[in-house]
Amino acid sequence: MKQAHHTIELSTRGPGLYEITAELERFVRGSGVTDGLVTCFVRHTSASLLIQENADPDVQRDLQDFFAWLATSGPRFRHTAEGPDDMPSHIRSSLTQTSISIPLQDGRLALGTWQGLYLFEHRDAPHRRAVTLHVIGG
Amino acid sequence: MKQAHHTIELSTRGPGLYEITAELERFVRGSGVTDGLVTCFVRHTSASLLIQENADPDVQRDLQDFFAWLATSGPRFRHTAEGPDDMPSHIRSSLTQTSISIPLQDGRLALGTWQGLYLFEHRDAPHRRAVTLHVIGG
Amino acid sequence: MKQAHHTIELSTRGPGLYEITAELERFVRGSGVTDGLVTCFVRHTSASLLIQENADPDVQRDLQDFFAWLATSGPRFRHTAEGPDDMPSHIRSSLTQTSISIPLQDGRLALGTWQGLYLFEHRDAPHRRAVTLHVIGG
Repeated sequence: MKQAHHTIELSTRGPGLYEITAELERFVRGSGVTDGLVTCFVRHTSASLLIQENADPDVQRDLQDFFAWLATSGPRFRHTAEGPDDMPSHIRSSLTQTSISIPLQDGRLALGTWQGLYLFEHRDAPHRRAVTLHVIGG
Repeated sequence: MKQAHHTIELSTRGPGLYEITAELERFVRGSGVTDGLVTCFVRHTSASLLIQENADPDVQRDLQDFFAWLATSGPRFRHTAEGPDDMPSHIRSSLTQTSISIPLQDGRLALGTWQGLYLFEHRDAPHRRAVTLHVIGG
Repeated sequence: MKQAHHTIELSTRGPGLYEITAELERFVRGSGVTDGLVTCFVRHTSASLLIQENADPDVQRDLQDFFAWLATSGPRFRHTAEGPDDMPSHIRSSLTQTSISIPLQDGRLALGTWQGLYLFEHRDAPHRRAVTLHVIGG
C-alpha cells in the first residue's frame, strides 16, 4: 500500500472549462500505483472541478452559458467588493465540485469513454489555479 | 489494509432515480473490508449519482421535476445533434454528482437512516449504465 | 498505513452555513495521520456540505439567499407533509455536496487560503446534525 501527492498549476484566461485529464493520467502513471483511489481537489472557491463530455466542444460552451445564466438569475448580491463576477463565481463553484474521487484499476482510471476532467474557471480575469492530486493504493 | 473493485451495471427506462443502495451494501459485505472508505463513480456524463431520502417516493418525483425544469430554463443550446434531451442531461449531471465517498465503520456504511444511494438517469431513451465501486481499508 | 473515524455533532438554528473547519483539523491532528486522504460525509438529506470562502460573511449570506431562491423557483412540490421547507431542503442538498474528500500532506489539509468547510443547514427549525469524518494514510 502506498500513496503519492502532486499539485497541478494552470493559468486560465477567463470563464470556461480547461481539460486536465492528461495531467491527471501522467500523475497516476508516475506514482507507480495501479489499483486504488485517485482524488482531485481544487484549492479555490471561484473555480471548481467537473467531469463532463470531452467530445463535442459545444457541450462545454453550453455548460459555460448555462452556469453564467443561472448564477446571475437570483437575488441581488451583497458581496460586490471583489467585482461583479466574484459572487456569481462562488455560486457556480458551489453548484459544481471541489473534490472528485476516481477508482483506479489495472493502471486505468474508471473514467468512461467520453469523460474528461475539467477545471471550471468562473472569474473573468486571468488566474493561476492549483489542483491537488492524491492517489492511494497498491 | 486491502481493497476491492466492482462495477454495477443497470438498465434505465427514462429519467428518474434508481436506487442502488442494496448493490452497494452487497459489494461492501463481499469485500471483507469492515473499516475504510467506499467510493461510487458513475462512468457517464448524462447520468449521475445522488444520495437522497428513500422514504417518500414523492421526494424522488419532485427532484426529477425540479432538475427537468432547471436544466431547460436557461439559454438555448448549441449542442442538439444527440437529441433535445442530451444537453439538459449534461447540465443535470453537472449539478449533481459523478463520485460519492462514504466512510465504512464496523461493517456499516455511514449512511443516515433515510439516506439511499441513487443513479440519477437524465436521458429519455433506455440506457445501460455502469457505476464503479471501490473500497479500501481493513 | 492507518485510519481513524470520528463523528462531529452540531446544533443548527435555521438555514445557513456553519463552519466546521476547526473540528475537522482537530480530528486530523488527533488521528496521528500526516499524509493521506480525509473524507467528510453528512448523514442527512436536508443538510449538506460545502467548501466556500471563509473571509467575508456576506458571501455566506448571498449563498444562502441564492439557494433559497433557486429551490423555490421551480414547479410545485408533491412532498409537503413535512412542511413547506422540507422539499426545498432536499433540492438544496442535492445541488451541493453529501461527501467531500481533501488530500492531507505533511500534516496539512490541501485547503486553500480562503477555503473553509461548512455544514449547510437547509431546514427552518433547529436540528441536531452529524458529519462523519474518516482519514486513511500514514
